Amino acid sequence: MQTVDFLISARWVIPIEPAGVALEAHSVAVHQGRIVAIAPTAEALGRFAPGQHIERPSHVLLPGFVNAHTHAGMTLLRGAAEAATLDRWLSEEVRPLEQRWMDPEYVRDGTALAIADMLTSGTTCFADMHLFAEISAQAAAEAGMRAAIGVPVLDAPTIWADSAGECLEKGLKLHDEYRDDPLVTAVLAPHAPEALSDETLMRVRRAADELEMPMTMHVNETAEQACADVPADPARRTIARLERLGMLSPLLVAVHAVHVDAADLERLARGGVHVVHCPQSNLKLGNGVCPVPQLRAQGINVALGTDGAASNNDLDMLAELRTAALLARGLFPQATVSAHEWLEVATLNGARALGLSESIGSIAPGKWADLCCIDLDRPQTQPVYDPAVQIVYSASRDQVSDVWVAGRALVTDGTPTRIDLTGLMERARRWGARIAGRGTSGSA
Amino acid sequence: MQTVDFLISARWVIPIEPAGVALEAHSVAVHQGRIVAIAPTAEALGRFAPGQHIERPSHVLLPGFVNAHTHAGMTLLRGAAEAATLDRWLSEEVRPLEQRWMDPEYVRDGTALAIADMLTSGTTCFADMHLFAEISAQAAAEAGMRAAIGVPVLDAPTIWADSAGECLEKGLKLHDEYRDDPLVTAVLAPHAPEALSDETLMRVRRAADELEMPMTMHVNETAEQACADVPADPARRTIARLERLGMLSPLLVAVHAVHVDAADLERLARGGVHVVHCPQSNLKLGNGVCPVPQLRAQGINVALGTDGAASNNDLDMLAELRTAALLARGLFPQATVSAHEWLEVATLNGARALGLSESIGSIAPGKWADLCCIDLDRPQTQPVYDPAVQIVYSASRDQVSDVWVAGRALVTDGTPTRIDLTGLMERARRWGARIAGRGTSGSA
Repeated sequence: MQTVDFLISARWVIPIEPAGVALEAHSVAVHQGRIVAIAPTAEALGRFAPGQHIERPSHVLLPGFVNAHTHAGMTLLRGAAEAATLDRWLSEEVRPLEQRWMDPEYVRDGTALAIADMLTSGTTCFADMHLFAEISAQAAAEAGMRAAIGVPVLDAPTIWADSAGECLEKGLKLHDEYRDDPLVTAVLAPHAPEALSDETLMRVRRAADELEMPMTMHVNETAEQACADVPADPARRTIARLERLGMLSPLLVAVHAVHVDAADLERLARGGVHVVHCPQSNLKLGNGVCPVPQLRAQGINVALGTDGAASNNDLDMLAELRTAALLARGLFPQATVSAHEWLEVATLNGARALGLSESIGSIAPGKWADLCCIDLDRPQTQPVYDPAVQIVYSASRDQVSDVWVAGRALVTDGTPTRIDLTGLMERARRWGARIAGRGTSGSA
Repeated sequence: MQTVDFLISARWVIPIEPAGVALEAHSVAVHQGRIVAIAPTAEALGRFAPGQHIERPSHVLLPGFVNAHTHAGMTLLRGAAEAATLDRWLSEEVRPLEQRWMDPEYVRDGTALAIADMLTSGTTCFADMHLFAEISAQAAAEAGMRAAIGVPVLDAPTIWADSAGECLEKGLKLHDEYRDDPLVTAVLAPHAPEALSDETLMRVRRAADELEMPMTMHVNETAEQACADVPADPARRTIARLERLGMLSPLLVAVHAVHVDAADLERLARGGVHVVHCPQSNLKLGNGVCPVPQLRAQGINVALGTDGAASNNDLDMLAELRTAALLARGLFPQATVSAHEWLEVATLNGARALGLSESIGSIAPGKWADLCCIDLDRPQTQPVYDPAVQIVYSASRDQVSDVWVAGRALVTDGTPTRIDLTGLMERARRWGARIAGRGTSGSA
C-alpha cells in the first residue's frame, strides 16, 4: 500500500486528458500537492493508504478552472461603471474612478475580493493585468491561489510607473522574485498595440523571448482597434503590425480578438498565438462576439477569461463557460464544440496559453493537484446523462463544493477555508460607500 | 397599530412599480397572502404589529420572477437531447424519448422537479405547455406555486388527446376546474401555427375570446417557421396568416419571435400581442436571437422565459435575465435597456402577458405577496452601487434566500419548505437511469 496525503473518490472524474471522458466511480490520489494517480475507486482503495479519504458521491471532480484574463484589482468597481461602450466606460467612468481611488490598499482589497469570488466558483488559477502588480502577486500568494501576474507595460506614465522602461524593470524584478514560487509566475502585459510604440513592443518581445515569459495583451477588442494602424490598408491592420514586430509567437496571449478577419486569423494561427475569449465582457461593452469556432478551425488555442468584474460583472467561469457555449451554438450553428471540449477550453487551454500546461490544466500524474468538485445533486442538474453537459449548461457556482490548489483545500463545503470572509466583505462594503461618495472619505 | 401576518424588512426593495427605483431600508407588510403596504422600515415598524418580523439586512426584496414560457414536464430530459438544431433535437431525440416514456407519472415527476428548480431560483409563477396539462396543474397546486397552465392544442393525435377538438374540451374543463383557484389558471396553448389548420386556430381564438383566456403559442422560432405559409410571398408570412385569422390580440402570447421582419413587428404591435423571449434556448438550438430592443421600440410587451429544461438546460430566470441583458448589449449596442427595465421584463411584463398583472408582478398594495429575496452579501455581488445591476449581471441562484407565493414561505434560507427534496432527487435519478437505458425498465 502506497501512503498518500489524501484520496478523493468522486461519482465522476473528468480528467480533460484523455479528451471527452467522464470516468465513473474513480479516485484521484494526491501526495505533497501533486497528483499521484487516477484509478477506479475499488482499485485505488486497494493500492493507496491515504491520510484522508474524501468521498464525493454525487460530484464531478475536474481540474480547477483557469481564468485566462482578468483585472482582479478592478473588483471594487463591480457595477460602478455601466456605460454601454468600451470607450465611454473607460474614459468617462473607470479612469476617473481609478484616478481618484487607486492605491496599494485598493489593489490589495480588490484582488482579495476577486480571489474569494474566483475560488468559490471553482477557479484555481488566474491571469491578471493590473497596476501595482506586486500587490496582486502578494495577494495571490497569501491566499494560496495560483496566478500568472501580468505586469502592465504602457508608454504613458501611470501612478505606478513613469514609463514603459520602468514597467519592464518592475516586471523583471517580479519575475526574479517569484522565480522559484510554486504558485505565482510573472508574465508581461503590454496593455494593447494602440497604447504602445513599435520600440516598446519590441523591447517587450525581447524580454519575453529571453526569459521565456508569456505576454498577455488586449488585441482587437473593438473594430477600431483591429485597424488602428492604417485603417485603409488591410496589410497594415493591427495584427499585421504585430507580425512585423515579431510579436506573433506561442508566447503571445491575445485577449478578446473579437474583430478578426481571415488574414488576421491566418497570422495568429501561423504564429502559434493563443486567444482568450471573454464573451460576457465583450457583450456587455457592445463589442460583439469572438468567432471562436473559426479560430478553433484554424488550430488556434482558445482559452476562456472573465475579464474584470467592472465589465462582466463577476468572475464566475461556470457562467462564462455557459455564455461561451450558448453563443457558439446560437451564432455559429454550423460548428459544433462539445461540452467536453468547452471544459478543456476553461482548463487545459488556459494552462497552455499561460505556459503552465506541463504542471496544471488536467488530472494527470505528476501535475499539481489543482482541482474542483461540483455537486450535481440539485434539482437544476438532475437527472445526469453526461456530467460535462450538466456542468456547461446547468450547474451554478454554488454547486462548487471543494477547491484544491497544489493539494491544499482552499474551499470545503462551498466555504473558503483560509479567507476571513466577514472582514473581506466589510472592507468591500466600506470601499463601495467611499467610491459611491456615501462614506466620509468619499465626500471629497 | 395594524395587525398583519408578517413584515419583511430588507436592505433594498425593488417594487418594479414605480419603475427604476431601489428603495433603501424599506419594509413590506403582508396579510392574508396579500401585500398591505410598502413603507420605510422606521415608519412600518410604527404602523404595523406583525405576527412575524422577517429581517433581511443585506438583501433585495423584489417580486418573484415570472417564467413566461416553459415545458415543466420535459425536465426529466435535461441534458438527454443535445442535437444542435431544433429539427434534429425534436425529431431525432426528444420525440422518440417522449414516445417511449411519457405518461402521467413522468409528467408529475418532471413537473415537480421543474418546480423545485424554479422556486429555489426565485420564480413564483410559470407559464407551462405540456401534454397531461391536468397533471401539471395538480403539481403546481400541490406545491403552492402559481402557474398559468397551457393546454396544448394540436391537430395531430397524441397520447393525451385524439384531436384538436379533444384538446379544447380538456382545456375548457381545466379552465372550469380552476376558475376560483387563487394560484392556478388555465390558458390555451395552440402549439405553433404550422401545426394547426386555419379552422383549429379560429376555434382556439373563439374560445379564448369568449372566456378571456390567454393563448400561448410558439411563433417564428426558426427562419422556416417565419414564412411557413407561402415562403415566396411576404404578405403570407406566418404572422400575416395569424392576423388574417384574427389571432393577433392582447390575448396572444407569441413565444420566441426570433425571426421577425419589420412587417411582422408592425403586425404584432398593432395587435397588442405579447412576446416571450427565451434567449438561452434560442441560442442552444441554433435559432439566433430575438431582436428585443426593436420589439420594445415598437411598444411590444416583452416577457422572459426559460423554455424547457431539455433545451436550456435549467429553469433559472436569473441566468436567463443575464443572458438576455448581455445579448442585447452585445448585439444591439445602439439600444439601451437598463438593469431595472430587465427586472421588469422578468416580473411584471410576464404577468402582463399572462393576464395576471392586476394581481402579481410588482410590489403594490392589494397584489398577492409573490416575492423573492436575494442576498447580496457575497464576494461576487459586493460592493453594491445599484442592487438592480448586481441582480442582473452578478447574482447567482444560490443567493435567493426566500420565496413567498401568495404570502406562503415556499423557500427559506435557500431551502424549499414544502418539497421532499430527497425523495424528489431519488425519483429524478431513477428516471434518468431508466431513460438512459441503465435502469431495469429502461433495458426494454
